[in-house]
Formats: sequence, structure tokens, C-alpha cells
Amino acid sequence: MKQERSRTVRVFAPATVSNVVCGYDIFGFALSEPGDEVQAWLVDEAGVFIEAVHGDGGRLPLEAEWNTAGVAVSRMLEKAGASQGIALEIHKKMPLGSGMGSSAASAAAAAFAANILLDSPFQTRELLPFCLEAERTACGAGHVDNAAPSLLGGFILVRSYDPLDVVSLPVPPGLFCTVIHPRMEVNTGQARRMLPSSIPLVKAVRQWGNVSGFTAGLIQGDFDLIRRSMEDVIVEPVRSSLLPHYHETRRAAMEAGALGCGISGSGPSMFALSSSLETALETALAMKKSSLELGLPCEEYVSALSQPGARVVGGET
Amino acid sequence: MKQERSRTVRVFAPATVSNVVCGYDIFGFALSEPGDEVQAWLVDEAGVFIEAVHGDGGRLPLEAEWNTAGVAVSRMLEKAGASQGIALEIHKKMPLGSGMGSSAASAAAAAFAANILLDSPFQTRELLPFCLEAERTACGAGHVDNAAPSLLGGFILVRSYDPLDVVSLPVPPGLFCTVIHPRMEVNTGQARRMLPSSIPLVKAVRQWGNVSGFTAGLIQGDFDLIRRSMEDVIVEPVRSSLLPHYHETRRAAMEAGALGCGISGSGPSMFALSSSLETALETALAMKKSSLELGLPCEEYVSALSQPGARVVGGET
Repeated sequence: MKQERSRTVRVFAPATVSNVVCGYDIFGFALSEPGDEVQAWLVDEAGVFIEAVHGDGGRLPLEAEWNTAGVAVSRMLEKAGASQGIALEIHKKMPLGSGMGSSAASAAAAAFAANILLDSPFQTRELLPFCLEAERTACGAGHVDNAAPSLLGGFILVRSYDPLDVVSLPVPPGLFCTVIHPRMEVNTGQARRMLPSSIPLVKAVRQWGNVSGFTAGLIQGDFDLIRRSMEDVIVEPVRSSLLPHYHETRRAAMEAGALGCGISGSGPSMFALSSSLETALETALAMKKSSLELGLPCEEYVSALSQPGARVVGGET
Repeated sequence: MKQERSRTVRVFAPATVSNVVCGYDIFGFALSEPGDEVQAWLVDEAGVFIEAVHGDGGRLPLEAEWNTAGVAVSRMLEKAGASQGIALEIHKKMPLGSGMGSSAASAAAAAFAANILLDSPFQTRELLPFCLEAERTACGAGHVDNAAPSLLGGFILVRSYDPLDVVSLPVPPGLFCTVIHPRMEVNTGQARRMLPSSIPLVKAVRQWGNVSGFTAGLIQGDFDLIRRSMEDVIVEPVRSSLLPHYHETRRAAMEAGALGCGISGSGPSMFALSSSLETALETALAMKKSSLELGLPCEEYVSALSQPGARVVGGET
């Protein structure tokens, strides 16, 4: 059923890096690019209608309840008690299964757009529970460390999931991120299942020492403390086995002068932080070279760390 | 052997609160009182000589290698390659086994005093490894979350033990601490052994969310974030079983308006943080009343969070 377009809005939501080395499931930040765009318009019939998905190679479902954008908007309409429906056209402008929060970006963009069409019954932050539900659909586990920065921008701490408590952390102006996306896919569900359900207390203590150090380094602009704290003794040692390029890419980034380097989300993308744009660009070159030497074509992105989240880029509202 | 006193120095090192709810083994901060005093002087004979310990009811060993102050100075003399020796007279001005870092305060005071007598071959921060060795003697586990704030003052993050990386975190001016010490003892070794060697990953994630939130709250002076982050899902649920007063004292502190409340070190002392001196004093009253109602006589202390560490209080240097 092709829904007639009345009032429409087009929203961009950025790709994101989650986990951020020591902050498994609690840290995430927005990139300047890539990202997804969602066009949305009101329809008379109640419900969510995904009219088209572009750029996914036909892989994403059009059924609203199986599509992250559809789930997010569906939950929002229920909560708002809306009598009208929403139609969506999704423009995937980033690779699926890349570890850059592809499903979260679509959900964030769709929820943000739908909220505008409903005359903003929710604060942007209040859209997070809808995105959380959407992520549960996409990868079996409810997490918002991608959706929160995609929606709100900047660097996000998910302090707690119960109750949901999302905190924006300030970032120093000189901090830049390099992301490299080698053209291969990692199954997020598998990457999650391979983690142990229990970890040694001594490793947990080491991890939360780094989590505190990273947080302090970020807020105080202490690049050396950020560098020392970018160590993960729990998740990356396990997940890196899924990434044939992990060690080479990391070495290349560190030799180029990055503060630290790790897996973006559950991979295969990897990211590095640098204390200047120059170093971030040098790091991109080094990571790309390393990836190509391993026979993995890739895209690379460089971005300042402080980026806006979901925003209107077109439409007539 | 009574060592003749030539040049002497008298040093105070404060009691400390370690763990700080969510920061097991990584957080600690200095109190204004109580604390230990150590008088030290140079002697011709190489080695460390503990001439007397006051205020311990005869419980602390005079053998240098079994006394935390002795061990700290001993390791320092070895590292400095000193030909002379150091004699110590230790004035315990705080209860043993209280959870306020009694052994660490003695070690910090002794190391600080001895360093002065040797004409400061070490920076204050460089004395930490000697205190770490001393703590290993006292409770079987090497940790510096008490010794570091006792030596350096303020709020300390022990980001890493290997390599030892101790970071001073800024604290907001309005933050105050209440400590209550009920007159009973907890064996630190036992309190440590009862902890599980492995913990569920989901709990670890919850803990490091709080650790990051607490760190951010502290640096940014966000009292509400501090309040939300003062939750421990790993250590306190286990250790509180050793403290018959835990739940009552905690409830009393929270009802008095404290931001959060938990075990100081491994107990039996408990501490609370408050966003004003008035609330900290109210909290002290409430915690004391609760303790007395349980038949536990106690001392209470109120202190701003930003306190100096070890310092000279007398002697002729």
C-alpha cells in the first residue's frame, strides 16, 4: 500500500562508535559521517508502514515489527496514543553489520522524524526507550550505546539500563576519531554470545580503573590519561579473534601516533582516537594501508569527537 | 636497643575511606581526622627500628618486617641505598581494623617522615610502591587505595596496579563526608576472601557504568549524578553480611539526606557523602543514633572531601 505523502520530514542520524575500548555497553559517541536518512510522513491509517528501504541491497525487512526503524516508531505511536499512522522511507547510507551502529541510526532517525510529525510529544531524550526496543529486535539484546549518541550526539555514558540513565560527557576540543570499515561483516549476535557470562573480579577491577581514568581524561582533556586508560582486558581479547585484521590495524594506528585503538561496536570496523586532526588523518592512512595489505578493501572516516545527533535535513513540516 | 635521637621529624597522615561504594580497589579519599602520627629520626645503624607503638593496646608488632610502617621505611631505605638507619615511634590515633585505613596511615606517615630525614630522595608520589609493599604485609593483598590518599590527600583513582598509576581527581567544594566507626572489628583478610573470584559480566557492566558516572559527577560537581552512581552491585551485597548494622545505618544516612552511603574500606566503619556541611552533620547524628539503637557505641567524623595528605606536624629537621 503506497501511502500518500502529506506533511513530510527527512532526518539524518549519524553512525556511532560504541564500547570505546574499556567501556563495553556503556560508552558511545557520534561520528560526523556516515549515517542514515529517514523520510517520514503522516498517514490516516494507524500503524507504521515502511514504504521502501534504499541502499541495503534488499536485506532489511519491510515489516515494521522486524525493522528497527519500524519498531522504534511503533512503540512511540503506542506510547503517544496516536490515532494516525506514520510511513517511512529509509535511506541506508552506511554499511549493515559494520559495527558503526547501522540499526541504531535508522531507529534514531525514524523516531526523531516521527516525533516531529506528531508535534513533538516527547523530548529527544525520551525517544531512547523506543530505540532500546528497536535494538532488542535487531540484535537480541537491548542496548542504547549506539542509539543514544546517534540521537543526542556527542559522547554518551549509559550509566544504567534499569532505570535507563543516559549522561552526556563533555569532550575536549582537540580529540579526533578515525574509523576504518573493512568490507566484511560480523554478526552482532554471535559477537555477543561469544563473551563469557562471568569474568574474574581482578579483571573487572582493572576494567573499572580504566573506565574511571577514561572518563576523567575525557572531561579534563587529559590526553595522556585517555591514552593510558584505553585498555580492554575483557571484551576485546575475546572478540578480536573474529577480526583477522585486528592486531595489524591496531599496531598501524598506534605507530601512527593514535592515543588508542579498538573495535567499533562488535566490529569489523575499528576506531582510533587522536589528539589532533593531523594525527587522526595520518592514522586513517596507516589503518587503510594495513587493511589493504591484508587484502581487505575499506572505507575510512575522520571526525571530531563532538558531533550533533539526529537532525532534520529536509522535508516540509 | 634505644636509638639516640638526633634530628627528628613528626608526621601526621590521615585516615581514609577506600572503595567508595562502586569503586572497589580503585577509589579512596583522605579525611581531616582521625589519623596516625609517626616520629622518626636517623640512627647510625642500618635498618629500621620501631622504638615504640602507642595507642594500639600492645597489638602491633615492633619487628620492622611485620609492621606496616617498618616495611614501608625498610623498602625505601633499600631503594635509596641508605647507609644509615631510621628509628620510628608510632602514635596510633585511630582504631585498628576500623576500615579507615589504619595500617596505610602508619605506613604513609613513616615513609613520608623517613624521606624527609634522607633529604627527600623521592617525590611524595614515589613513596607509593613502599606503601604498597607495607599493605601486602598488613592484609595479604597489595593495594594502595588507602595509602595513596593518606599520602597525597584528596580523592584518588588507582587506575592501574601494573604499572602503578595513581590519579588525583578534583572534587567539588560542597562535598562532605560523614564517617561512623562502630566499636567492633572486621578482619580485612576475611572480608577480602569472602568475595567471589568471578562475577557476572552483566553486574560488572552495571558497576563500570556507576564508576564512570561517579567519576563524572565528582569532576563536574554534579551531585545528582554522584547520588545516582553510588550503587555497588558486587562487593557490598557480600560484605554487608559481616556488618550487623549495615542496613540500618545506611537507611538512617539516606533518610537524613545523604547522597549515598556505604562501607568504608572493608568496614565496620561506614561513610556517607553529602552535598553540604549541614547535611553531613545531620547525617552523622542520624547514623550515630541508629548505631546506638543497635547497641553499638561509635565515633563519628565529618570532613570536607578535599583534604591534605601526609604532612609534618613537629620535630626539628
